[in-house]
Amino acid sequence: MQNNLLKDYEVGVFALGGLGEVGKNMYVVEYQDEIIVIDSGILFPDDHLLGIDYVINDYTYLFENQEKIKALIITHGHEDHIGAIPYLLRQVKIPKIYASGIALGLLKNKFEEHKGFHANIVEYQEHEKIVFGKLAVSFFRTNHSIPDSFGVVVDTPEGTIVHTGDFKFDFTPTGPDANYQKIAELGQNGVLLLLSDSTNAEFDSFTKSEKMVSENIKDIFTKIEGRAIVATFASNVHRVQQIVEASVEQGRKIAIFGRSMIRTIDVGQEMGYIKAPKNTFVDSKNINQIKPGELTILCTGSQGEPFAALSRIAAGTHRQISAHKGDTVIFSSSAIPGNQVDISKTINSLFRRGANVIINSPLTETHSSGHAGQQELKLMLKLIRPKYFMSIHGEYRMLKIHAEIAIETGVKRGNEFVLDNGDVLAVSKNDARVAGKVQAGNIYIDGKGIGDIGNVVIRDRKNLSEDGLLSAIITIDEKTKKTIGKPVIISRGFVYMREQEALTKDISDLVDERVNKKLAHMKTLNVSAIKKDVTKLLNDFIYRRTERSPMVMPVVMMVNETTT
Amino acid sequence: MQNNLLKDYEVGVFALGGLGEVGKNMYVVEYQDEIIVIDSGILFPDDHLLGIDYVINDYTYLFENQEKIKALIITHGHEDHIGAIPYLLRQVKIPKIYASGIALGLLKNKFEEHKGFHANIVEYQEHEKIVFGKLAVSFFRTNHSIPDSFGVVVDTPEGTIVHTGDFKFDFTPTGPDANYQKIAELGQNGVLLLLSDSTNAEFDSFTKSEKMVSENIKDIFTKIEGRAIVATFASNVHRVQQIVEASVEQGRKIAIFGRSMIRTIDVGQEMGYIKAPKNTFVDSKNINQIKPGELTILCTGSQGEPFAALSRIAAGTHRQISAHKGDTVIFSSSAIPGNQVDISKTINSLFRRGANVIINSPLTETHSSGHAGQQELKLMLKLIRPKYFMSIHGEYRMLKIHAEIAIETGVKRGNEFVLDNGDVLAVSKNDARVAGKVQAGNIYIDGKGIGDIGNVVIRDRKNLSEDGLLSAIITIDEKTKKTIGKPVIISRGFVYMREQEALTKDISDLVDERVNKKLAHMKTLNVSAIKKDVTKLLNDFIYRRTERSPMVMPVVMMVNETTT
Repeated sequence: MQNNLLKDYEVGVFALGGLGEVGKNMYVVEYQDEIIVIDSGILFPDDHLLGIDYVINDYTYLFENQEKIKALIITHGHEDHIGAIPYLLRQVKIPKIYASGIALGLLKNKFEEHKGFHANIVEYQEHEKIVFGKLAVSFFRTNHSIPDSFGVVVDTPEGTIVHTGDFKFDFTPTGPDANYQKIAELGQNGVLLLLSDSTNAEFDSFTKSEKMVSENIKDIFTKIEGRAIVATFASNVHRVQQIVEASVEQGRKIAIFGRSMIRTIDVGQEMGYIKAPKNTFVDSKNINQIKPGELTILCTGSQGEPFAALSRIAAGTHRQISAHKGDTVIFSSSAIPGNQVDISKTINSLFRRGANVIINSPLTETHSSGHAGQQELKLMLKLIRPKYFMSIHGEYRMLKIHAEIAIETGVKRGNEFVLDNGDVLAVSKNDARVAGKVQAGNIYIDGKGIGDIGNVVIRDRKNLSEDGLLSAIITIDEKTKKTIGKPVIISRGFVYMREQEALTKDISDLVDERVNKKLAHMKTLNVSAIKKDVTKLLNDFIYRRTERSPMVMPVVMMVNETTT
Repeated sequence: MQNNLLKDYEVGVFALGGLGEVGKNMYVVEYQDEIIVIDSGILFPDDHLLGIDYVINDYTYLFENQEKIKALIITHGHEDHIGAIPYLLRQVKIPKIYASGIALGLLKNKFEEHKGFHANIVEYQEHEKIVFGKLAVSFFRTNHSIPDSFGVVVDTPEGTIVHTGDFKFDFTPTGPDANYQKIAELGQNGVLLLLSDSTNAEFDSFTKSEKMVSENIKDIFTKIEGRAIVATFASNVHRVQQIVEASVEQGRKIAIFGRSMIRTIDVGQEMGYIKAPKNTFVDSKNINQIKPGELTILCTGSQGEPFAALSRIAAGTHRQISAHKGDTVIFSSSAIPGNQVDISKTINSLFRRGANVIINSPLTETHSSGHAGQQELKLMLKLIRPKYFMSIHGEYRMLKIHAEIAIETGVKRGNEFVLDNGDVLAVSKNDARVAGKVQAGNIYIDGKGIGDIGNVVIRDRKNLSEDGLLSAIITIDEKTKKTIGKPVIISRGFVYMREQEALTKDISDLVDERVNKKLAHMKTLNVSAIKKDVTKLLNDFIYRRTERSPMVMPVVMMVNETTT
């Protein structure tokens, strides 16, 4: 399929995911017969998407244009940037995947778990320039909440396009500095279009440095006497190293709980990001042999996820360890919106067990975001000095606020773009316009299924979750055109049916009477008409009796003695 | 039932709701043959209680001791303090309900909506002392986010018990002052036990004054040009009056959207809390005749509730009004934990419609809490100087932190109590001890049903919400002991079954084969054994094929031709 939205000289830039949401990032740069894809992430669904494990993008456009695709470039190793690659590769042929540092390590790890596709991964270095046909890609290091986060520069015949990746500016980072010089040089040479991370565009601050967080954690460690139990985001390798250092300084051994935390430590040690003296890490089975004051528990569960290590330690359902008096639990994390209630439950459980709990607050500062606040967004804009600007990576209000920030710092009004997934921005030396829309959408992943869950299934789950389900199983004798026996009424999630014998009987009688009446008037037996009628009858009757609206599921069984 | 937990001279104090939770407040003071009940509220369930409208308390203890009950005292008119009264009155005989001010107005309103019980409501005045047999009750005014919030003093032969109700101290309130003198006098005369509101015990601040909020709102109003759309908690009558004043000052008419907001304005005007020049309020149907700069929309929906006025205005689904460019939407509210995602959706929709949105933040301060921060809790403790202390009204960690605050400010360690609902504190002149437990628990309300939803139903709804349901309807001929036809497979919320014909056929074949095999080996037909077997078979098979676990619901229909 030709992209007939673009004029021959125009560069198409669009998102297949990442606009109007925080998650499933995927950006595309297209010029004539070349496509560069940047990132391929998943979205963790909110509570409204019942039972959905995660959401990926609709890859139709890429599938239909796969012969153009030169490369998938990975900015960094977070799941909302790499998590969907196995799904993408099953559908779309990607000649090469470029990744660097810990993203590369995590990707290799991921590919060992998934099967059914071939992946050609290539490591890139920050100083490299990868030249395709007319497009070329280079990189600049930024700061973020996972090591090795890079901005991506796409050189096109019409000008330079810069994609920041996820970033903040940390002048005293735990890892290496952002490459201020290279970013400034881009601005010096002229940038046609900047795509920039909007996650924290609402915060007027400058995101605080990891150094301060590190010092605060070390300070807390000097004061605690019992076990230190620290929960943080497993992918935040620098933070994990800070906690390791704080522990080592206080002569504490470290036990690790939670699968993703164990993986982080493995990959992090392998790649040299996690450093500790020999014998620092102890087997989780042996923690009872270590004095409380000499032990750190490093675990997952900072979001109160019901099955994560910390939640089970708090609830007393963990096989090896439960919190008790004398423990100090440190949350080196912030609450992701939607998780507050679960986190609150975990904290209450920890208090009940007598543990001391330290959360991130303006007083403790045990966490810092990985995304740029307004001051850093402005710094990026001042360094890059783009002609055109497109906010990416954020909900609509974040994108909108970020676009205003761009204008404040020098982008000409009218040159800023707040788009939706699929909207194609056509840029050229002298112009930028929204050229149209390519197919973009949500694909739900539940278990092994891809795309077999649509809005109907979600709506059904929503209805089922609210008032359950009631089924009336009606057996009809095809010959006599009468019901055989009274309809059987069963329900789940509606009421305790055992306590509701009268209701059940009434429903059964009602259905029986109605169906037989209906059958008597039918010339030819119309099962779907009977089902429709019973559904309406029961919806009304049950709501009147109970003010509830369970999903009504009539089942008609036809029996014909002559066939048996 | 005699309360045999208490010695004859001891006063029993306990909560039937309100400890370990924010909601369904109900506190009981019992002395010999007298019981005073304080408040009877509901709890709004979190997302884990699927489909539950709200939660009330288990009133068994009150029912069994109803002859002792002298009165139900209402501290203030919030739903978590008065919402369950209709349910309570259907189960328990309460001779008199004492309420004051706006709580009285709201209660009368509520009783017009509910039927099936008799309520004897009596108005109390702050200066009154109501003497029962050995117990007497008096009151002191506090500040809170609804007018007429009172603390309750229960005089007992063993000493004075003080219950703060919900409170903060606002030195420049919109309504009358808290009664500092009376509170101090209580402390002067000696208080045996203080029960105090712990909602904001985690915040080390002094809750900011309504005056500041009022000034901030007025300040915002001077700067906006288009329509002002303001969302706040409907029960916050003082805040509503502030918004009315800000509108009137800027020459704006006011239209009201949302049922509870309309009720607030009605009751508020009736009682003199809402004051505005004639013709300030306009019919919501006529808003299009008013210039945008001369109109305020006052509405519900500050929590992003999907069906509230603001959410529909934002989504464009409201019959009369939708947000557009030029509108300024002010949230005079804060996010209740668990509502962030819904609020965020509403704000994004407003931004998409081009509206300007102002939320409460340290910069805007368009809202202030109704509950005391740590400094105010300490002031209450210093004024009351109780011998014993019991934290009430809060999740466990709030209660715990509040108890530590009590100790910091002079309560002797060991004299502070952090209890659960049902735990009976037995106090006397010289002692306080946890004497045991009375029945307390959660009753779920869904539609008309009371107590017909238990944990099984909730668990079923949870399961249904995650992977839906699959039913196999198996018809067995009683005579031949064979299935008649292949089992019918239907599902809801599982997968698009139409797209899964192969899966459906496999399941049906599998069940048919297994059931016939089972039947062949059965001497007497055991339906429940067949169901159990099919359930296990399908759980395993479906998980292997799909990695999903729908609720499996086998239905066995017995057919016997001789009976037809």
